[in-house]
Amino acid sequence: MTASGPLSGVTIVDLTRVLAGPFSTMILADLGARVIKVETPGTGDDAREYGPFVGGKSAYFISVNRGKESIALDLKKDEDRAVFEKLLAKADVVVENFRPGTMEKLGYGWDTLHAKYPKLIYAACSGFGHTGPHSKRPAYDMVVQAMGGIMSITGQPGGEPTRVGMSIGDVAAGLYTTIGINAALYDRATTGEGRKVDIGMFDVQMALMENAIVRYSATGEIPGPLGGRHPSITPFQVFKTQDGHMIVAGGNDTMYRRFCEIIERPDLATNPLFATNRLRNEHHDALEAEIQGVLTTRPTAAWLELLDAAGVPASRINDVSQVMQHPQVEPRNMVIDVTDPKAGSLRVAGNPVKISGYDDPTSRPTAPDVDQDREKILRELAG
Amino acid sequence: MTASGPLSGVTIVDLTRVLAGPFSTMILADLGARVIKVETPGTGDDAREYGPFVGGKSAYFISVNRGKESIALDLKKDEDRAVFEKLLAKADVVVENFRPGTMEKLGYGWDTLHAKYPKLIYAACSGFGHTGPHSKRPAYDMVVQAMGGIMSITGQPGGEPTRVGMSIGDVAAGLYTTIGINAALYDRATTGEGRKVDIGMFDVQMALMENAIVRYSATGEIPGPLGGRHPSITPFQVFKTQDGHMIVAGGNDTMYRRFCEIIERPDLATNPLFATNRLRNEHHDALEAEIQGVLTTRPTAAWLELLDAAGVPASRINDVSQVMQHPQVEPRNMVIDVTDPKAGSLRVAGNPVKISGYDDPTSRPTAPDVDQDREKILRELAG
Repeated sequence: MTASGPLSGVTIVDLTRVLAGPFSTMILADLGARVIKVETPGTGDDAREYGPFVGGKSAYFISVNRGKESIALDLKKDEDRAVFEKLLAKADVVVENFRPGTMEKLGYGWDTLHAKYPKLIYAACSGFGHTGPHSKRPAYDMVVQAMGGIMSITGQPGGEPTRVGMSIGDVAAGLYTTIGINAALYDRATTGEGRKVDIGMFDVQMALMENAIVRYSATGEIPGPLGGRHPSITPFQVFKTQDGHMIVAGGNDTMYRRFCEIIERPDLATNPLFATNRLRNEHHDALEAEIQGVLTTRPTAAWLELLDAAGVPASRINDVSQVMQHPQVEPRNMVIDVTDPKAGSLRVAGNPVKISGYDDPTSRPTAPDVDQDREKILRELAG
Repeated sequence: MTASGPLSGVTIVDLTRVLAGPFSTMILADLGARVIKVETPGTGDDAREYGPFVGGKSAYFISVNRGKESIALDLKKDEDRAVFEKLLAKADVVVENFRPGTMEKLGYGWDTLHAKYPKLIYAACSGFGHTGPHSKRPAYDMVVQAMGGIMSITGQPGGEPTRVGMSIGDVAAGLYTTIGINAALYDRATTGEGRKVDIGMFDVQMALMENAIVRYSATGEIPGPLGGRHPSITPFQVFKTQDGHMIVAGGNDTMYRRFCEIIERPDLATNPLFATNRLRNEHHDALEAEIQGVLTTRPTAAWLELLDAAGVPASRINDVSQVMQHPQVEPRNMVIDVTDPKAGSLRVAGNPVKISGYDDPTSRPTAPDVDQDREKILRELAG
């Protein structure tokens, strides 16, 4: 059923909904774990109602739940609790992204579970983590993007507040949850003990902001949005061309000098104002104006041909359709097929963790319907 | 020397430079692994030259290299190669973020290392991964932000292309590298075999874009930038207030209705145009205009007090100084102290992976000077 991978043989009981938790268990499934979604009878995961829909099924839901199984259990009913407890007894990890306190109310808090299943790893992914005065407050991606500071450094200088276009609040929390679960699995292989992993989306935003935080703590300056520019490297930013935009990443002196040759402005390479990255960064306004003046004389494609040939990192600003046609996509297997009985064939993002000795399948099983795997799971638990 | 954690006892030989790789090995160190940075004699990691500087030392470098050791080795010199090979023989993992082919040129490609050290895990984090036609091209954070599509969905509609304000190209690649290393450590604990983990920054961008990718593949519509708004939930976005901006995350019907009460517009809750999230999203322009009209009548703080009391997720847009004063920061230990002999006491982001049974130290050892731990390491290798 599940693909083979470094986590083959690992069973995850997955109570997570919507995005942060499901993104984590999707990665675990991609790495070979068996993921059993435990869903609310009837409606199941809320994300089943998020568009776009294909053949009546949520493409959003399919994308992050491919390769998982589903059983519907009402954790307030004795009969279903008995099934859930049998599942836990056989599982390696239970993951949830409820509001803190929910598992305790159900009688499945960490202390209870750890006493009963000492080898079980318990991972919680919540808005603010399981401790602290804000622990029980609700949070969503949008909340932690605003509260955690990333919106304060994203956007045009002086412009409107800007959200990171993907759900980085949820997705990054899912990544750290995965890191914590994998570390706990390794730990258990050496110590024999299950651990609780407690991830807060707000904490994760702070971890992502490490550079802005140390910049502030070192200098007292509050970083603001810089548009298309890097705070400490120049030129490393968006420029206008004759027909659009491109980025140039002249990350060091060699690349910068090569770039100046390509744009036929050797004077910029020898100008003492721009001799080092530190100086270029200090005088970025002046340097940008000079570069901008040249780049608008030709279209993006012409510049990219020259820069690619010279080995200067540069790129057009790809939209999603262009990304999917990038020549690395197919050889790296980064768009895979999921064929669903209702939605048909859907193309979704692949697994970026390429690991030797295991297949990197070009298709994955679709996401389950609510309760789809009940019979099989009950049979296994009985057997 | 190293803190205890789930990776206690794991030794990482770390050839990485600048950000993506060092961010990964920082997490591994935070989780208890011993990380030995192998640096170029003299200059060491390029990031040692990235500002801001405090007491002559890079705060940027200290932040992502705290708690590591350093030995300077010239991998082209026989004597240093002998030391490096002794290190590898004792290590669990070697990590590098060179341009693909560099390790092979040094005689330390995966095939060679795996034959000699079959239990050694080899992790590579590069721009485009170790396969495919673009494999050997240079890439930086800025390149993959543009090439991988995230810039095409970040920013104001019709506005200038906008970079995500932190280095998500590097940092997310570091997170997936960490996931791969931890999975390989678990795998080795069960199979006894070392694996190669091959992470491409471009691949990682595609993984982050999973929602945009499935949206495009399901509907054929190319997602664009939406400013401060979520693509499929309304209201879930930035609004102007009397004195600034705030975000409101009315993620479901209950929250939406509660929000309408707070802003004293019960008519918006009962208006059939806005009855479900799907409808609100369809008519977001009209709904936003109605909400916006009310929110500009009071300052942010007044609205937040009302919304917090009603349990409607909302937030001001915090800058970094405000984030650091958030009441969750201290109880979650998300800003820790690193005291450096030159830079003094610096406050840096903490470890968001909270795991039971291990300390979450409020301070970490500083980043090493180049070659600082040579004597100790050589003694250990001799012993």
